[in-house]
Amino acid sequence: MQNLKIAVVGATGMVGQEFLKILKQKGVSAANLRCLASSRSAGNTIIYGDDTIEVEETTIHSFKGVDIALFSAGGETSRYFAPLAVKSGATVIDNSSAWRMDNEVPLVIPEINSEDLKWHKGIIANPNCSTIQMLMALWPLHRVNPIKRVVVSTYQSVSGAGGKAVNELISESRQILEGKAVTPHIFPHQIGFNLIPQIDVFLDNNYTKEEMKMTNESIKILHAPNLALSATCVRVPVMIGHSENINVEFADLMPADQARLLLTKAKGVRVLDDPSINLYPMPFMAAGSDDTMVGRIRQDLFQPNCLNMWVVADNVRKGAALNAVQIAESLVENNWVRASGER
Amino acid sequence: MQNLKIAVVGATGMVGQEFLKILKQKGVSAANLRCLASSRSAGNTIIYGDDTIEVEETTIHSFKGVDIALFSAGGETSRYFAPLAVKSGATVIDNSSAWRMDNEVPLVIPEINSEDLKWHKGIIANPNCSTIQMLMALWPLHRVNPIKRVVVSTYQSVSGAGGKAVNELISESRQILEGKAVTPHIFPHQIGFNLIPQIDVFLDNNYTKEEMKMTNESIKILHAPNLALSATCVRVPVMIGHSENINVEFADLMPADQARLLLTKAKGVRVLDDPSINLYPMPFMAAGSDDTMVGRIRQDLFQPNCLNMWVVADNVRKGAALNAVQIAESLVENNWVRASGER
Repeated sequence: MQNLKIAVVGATGMVGQEFLKILKQKGVSAANLRCLASSRSAGNTIIYGDDTIEVEETTIHSFKGVDIALFSAGGETSRYFAPLAVKSGATVIDNSSAWRMDNEVPLVIPEINSEDLKWHKGIIANPNCSTIQMLMALWPLHRVNPIKRVVVSTYQSVSGAGGKAVNELISESRQILEGKAVTPHIFPHQIGFNLIPQIDVFLDNNYTKEEMKMTNESIKILHAPNLALSATCVRVPVMIGHSENINVEFADLMPADQARLLLTKAKGVRVLDDPSINLYPMPFMAAGSDDTMVGRIRQDLFQPNCLNMWVVADNVRKGAALNAVQIAESLVENNWVRASGER
Repeated sequence: MQNLKIAVVGATGMVGQEFLKILKQKGVSAANLRCLASSRSAGNTIIYGDDTIEVEETTIHSFKGVDIALFSAGGETSRYFAPLAVKSGATVIDNSSAWRMDNEVPLVIPEINSEDLKWHKGIIANPNCSTIQMLMALWPLHRVNPIKRVVVSTYQSVSGAGGKAVNELISESRQILEGKAVTPHIFPHQIGFNLIPQIDVFLDNNYTKEEMKMTNESIKILHAPNLALSATCVRVPVMIGHSENINVEFADLMPADQARLLLTKAKGVRVLDDPSINLYPMPFMAAGSDDTMVGRIRQDLFQPNCLNMWVVADNVRKGAALNAVQIAESLVENNWVRASGER
């Protein structure tokens, strides 16, 4: 990673900032980094360790000499600039939903399907935050006992909608505590001390786009065309950390103890599950953590092949920036990122 | 109702206060009302419309001349005083969990099983808040197409844990917004801007008592011994209004349109379900409302006999005080409350 030229598109956004934090931790130098954003943010400076980096406007010329471009600037930017970046010789890892369901684009959680990186044609898609943490908890079980059906209810923090959404929760909470009326701007309704059972727009089947992402992306990542996954996605007044309650049906009996053991051994997963001391994952623990946390693992009372589990993760890290950087690392390790000499 | 002598046990508590609000709306006069509480609250006065009522300590003599005693002062108080109240000639409607699973005690949601009131022996139990709103939404469907299985995830407001819990959410939220550390007193963990996937204590099967209440009470109320109901109960940072995401499997096909129609016709249920205008129930709408609100009604994508739905209600009203008063009204209407002359 340290020898590659890396561009971050959307560097001033919430996920962009998290990209930079992680790249700094991985030892990427400021000299090897290009911070790109819209013209609005161009000229601003970003503090990167002891260095400052000037934010440049994203243009068709931005990707010259770039090995890996990490995109998190919305679907429109990705649709337009990702192919141009590839043309310039960069490999794109895109955090938007623009390319996820494209048959020519691998959709990857490195712990699960890094093999799919092998056939990338320049663009690799990073899955939706809710999908990543759910599959991190399901994959170690699915590989030994195939999953047939999933019923999942999410409890998603406002940071999933970006920095402005976090500010909206803070300002609405203050206003409500002071007895004032609130006017939502980012969310369709008040989020302070409220829940909104809608994330992203509604589709014709009365599911939201977010709910269908969980279904369709899971099928693609697990290579499980018959997975019957039904999701309901709900926004909750929490800053960082998505939570999910999952009822999962396996092909065969899956005792809770076996599931706990399999998850304890899984890379990137931390089991926090001890009812005797009220131990289970919660969003305020997950914020800042790289692990997907799993608890409340227990047999469905009536269906021996079904388990209930509660999964929490930092949606900005493993749900977005960290997973994308892990994809980059996996490309490097396997020599699947095109070297500059090849261009 | 207006001619009966009514005692409210736990009159200073959150549900007790809601009892009084509803009794006032129903036209019960202060002269016919006795406000009982623990010795700690005795001597305080309660404002009841234009009247004030002195709070008396609950003793074995408190129920003389009382026709109906509405209890909401915790399980211990109910276990001790309810039989004494019955001995004094009162009919007890108890909001605690103390008597709910007793075979001699009917557990009633008037819209569903008021017939069970017929065989009461003095004590009638009011179901758990989460159970009431779930069954209000399921019963109109169950009666035409029996329910086989339910997977439910709750999003329960802090008011379910009483007035002190509401204050804890308010003070924790303030502290967090000011960047201060919090110390929980009522809840096992921080609730401000967090979620707690535990309500009530854990049982040996790793389910919480609250989760098992939803299973066992539903079986009793619906007279459905084979109902396979799996619940996960989660506390959310909302003041008033419980929400539930329900995946329900019917014996036969249940089109979403048919379910919507049946629920639109059901008493005590309000359908708020129009994705085209982002309309669905949310806790901030439900607070203060008598109706159980249902939205996001849609077919499971893979199971034709399954529906998803989102149910919200005021847990302090229909989830507690209102349902208990409706039980009292049903007793009166049917002449099932013992008249004073009979004693």
